[in-house]
Amino acid sequence: MNPATTRTQVAIVGAGPAGLLLSHLLAARGIDSVVLETRSQEYVGARIRAGILEQSSVDLLTEVGLGERLAREGDQHRGIYLQFPHERHHIDFQSLIGRSVYVYGQTEVQKDLVEARTAAGQQWVYEISDVALHDLDTDRPSVTYVDADGAPQRLEADAIAGCDGSFGPSRAAIPGGTTWERTYPYSWFGILADVAPSTDELIYAWHPHGFALHSMRSETVSRLYLQVEPGTDPDSWSDDRIWDELATRLGHGQDGWELEPGPITDKSVLPMRSYVHAPMSHGRLFLAGDAAHIVPPTGAKGLNLAIADVALLAPALAELVGTGDARLADAYSDTALRRVWRCTHFSWWMTTMLHHSGDAFDEQLQLSQLRWVTSSEAGATGLAENYAGLPFEI
Amino acid sequence: MNPATTRTQVAIVGAGPAGLLLSHLLAARGIDSVVLETRSQEYVGARIRAGILEQSSVDLLTEVGLGERLAREGDQHRGIYLQFPHERHHIDFQSLIGRSVYVYGQTEVQKDLVEARTAAGQQWVYEISDVALHDLDTDRPSVTYVDADGAPQRLEADAIAGCDGSFGPSRAAIPGGTTWERTYPYSWFGILADVAPSTDELIYAWHPHGFALHSMRSETVSRLYLQVEPGTDPDSWSDDRIWDELATRLGHGQDGWELEPGPITDKSVLPMRSYVHAPMSHGRLFLAGDAAHIVPPTGAKGLNLAIADVALLAPALAELVGTGDARLADAYSDTALRRVWRCTHFSWWMTTMLHHSGDAFDEQLQLSQLRWVTSSEAGATGLAENYAGLPFEI
Repeated sequence: MNPATTRTQVAIVGAGPAGLLLSHLLAARGIDSVVLETRSQEYVGARIRAGILEQSSVDLLTEVGLGERLAREGDQHRGIYLQFPHERHHIDFQSLIGRSVYVYGQTEVQKDLVEARTAAGQQWVYEISDVALHDLDTDRPSVTYVDADGAPQRLEADAIAGCDGSFGPSRAAIPGGTTWERTYPYSWFGILADVAPSTDELIYAWHPHGFALHSMRSETVSRLYLQVEPGTDPDSWSDDRIWDELATRLGHGQDGWELEPGPITDKSVLPMRSYVHAPMSHGRLFLAGDAAHIVPPTGAKGLNLAIADVALLAPALAELVGTGDARLADAYSDTALRRVWRCTHFSWWMTTMLHHSGDAFDEQLQLSQLRWVTSSEAGATGLAENYAGLPFEI
Repeated sequence: MNPATTRTQVAIVGAGPAGLLLSHLLAARGIDSVVLETRSQEYVGARIRAGILEQSSVDLLTEVGLGERLAREGDQHRGIYLQFPHERHHIDFQSLIGRSVYVYGQTEVQKDLVEARTAAGQQWVYEISDVALHDLDTDRPSVTYVDADGAPQRLEADAIAGCDGSFGPSRAAIPGGTTWERTYPYSWFGILADVAPSTDELIYAWHPHGFALHSMRSETVSRLYLQVEPGTDPDSWSDDRIWDELATRLGHGQDGWELEPGPITDKSVLPMRSYVHAPMSHGRLFLAGDAAHIVPPTGAKGLNLAIADVALLAPALAELVGTGDARLADAYSDTALRRVWRCTHFSWWMTTMLHHSGDAFDEQLQLSQLRWVTSSEAGATGLAENYAGLPFEI
């Protein structure tokens, strides 16, 4: 059976934040797109992921009409706390560089995008399978897939955006290329808890037992993490053990500070790795977000990097398919990769500064670095400008 | 045969820059000392070592009357060059933090110290052997040794300063304690050449072949280094091969820059390691310089750290043996170690940013970090404040 063929200007593979934001930014430039997704809309919308937006991400979302609920419900943070035994220091991004970060979950960004794209009549197709990319070296690439009813389909386009994550078919469709990868010898045990956060801003804690992070999702939902051995079974830890260990590592009782426990509603263990693929484009295929790169969560770069990619890719594709001008599209991979490597380095730096490696010399280097970052304006500013976010194009 | 016994206030083991500067600083406070050394005065004076003084080191030497020739012959550098393929950037310490570094060889510092201590009638004993430390837990410690004529000697003191380097007996006399060590998987091949430097300030170069450094000793003597495999035999490289490889790594021909070769007068291969011993004191024994810590040469911290130790130790010993007030002496180890770890971290950071590790992910992290340090004022300032030198007490 020959597939039914439809046509659009940009075929977007993947309906996560990268894909939906791209469709939104393209629409604002008068470019049509169709978004394809193997999962259901409910599944994609419910995934618990990142929770921190950089200033640049917030500025972009606001500029393109996606900032209303974010402004109302997002929690602006001036900075973060860096903690090591007997000391907790506030790194004040606002004072240092005049930029903030915002607590606003990826699930919320996703909801806002779905709502905006629904209102705009965005074409999208969920629950597809057997996705394959074709003719990328021509100016008539296409995506074939089987729809939810089992019917074969072909979507022809002027360009394809691969926003389909680390395991999607887009990256695999690029012949050759180079990958860089680092797997860290630890994982994060993350919990969601129905309890008001015990802190106004995030606490990143170095502790001899391992790293801990006190984050939050709202005034009533806390998000906390513990460094654990890779392969840890989340069900093997009782709630009491989790809270006890969080209390120890986060310094419960130190200078009167207390960690308030509460009902745990979600437990999961996340592996930690860095991954970069280059180039980020091939012919008429362009990768954005996790399809091209993965960062460990320390430093909260993953979602922001996806947004930054898309901020570069949208004007490049609009020029390419709108006017035929390929200059931005040709430069996209190199331009995006400069920022990708900056964030990859920063995420690696935050990760290796804060996690227990088991090496005694590393431990002293970490403490010395933490003391410097928390006592030197240059050190704190370096952290602030990377954490609160560099410009999209660097 | 019972040893002949003499007495002083402070017995200083080691006549390198740390030991001689300590004797000088103590004398300025009215404290007598005797300096003991296993090598000959000529040997100690001829050792080719570090060549860069931090601002704080220069300020101290000047303040205590050792700055006259340094002011005349030392070469003030505003900063350093950081280089990676196709780019060379100047990090201007003067603009960033108002501090400089000075090219003035350790051999010159040593000459100035020997001259000043000779003029002051310093007591010193060279070419001794069988050095042993005794009664450190009492307020009458002593050093026994055999003098150059084979006669056993005992030097009693109120305190002992161990300035006898990594392999001397002082550190070994401290029971217990903790050591941290890292051996780097590369060495430096260093040459001295009778040729005017091809650069006004030091060039630290990242290159796919490995690190290279263009340093200098004077207007007519260049000092250059190449990263090589540990265990490299310096005689296995011809002069032509050395200059060719230096030219490649330092970017000969790039933007019209040329490396001028010349007659090589010295070749040596230096291993790279980090080493810290804590505590830096035990009873009436106090370690300073290489006796307590070793840094890899990247970042030029070794000699400066020895000077910083002694700057803290001299007033502490003067109080201890002069007035019996032990507060500074009791705090010495912790105070010195804060700075030791800062410099150990910085030396590790410079070393691991610039040397080829053979890992492709490391390589991209290094390049990303170099781009950041050379484009961000915070990044450059962080390097500047560590390189040009932090205050003695941090």
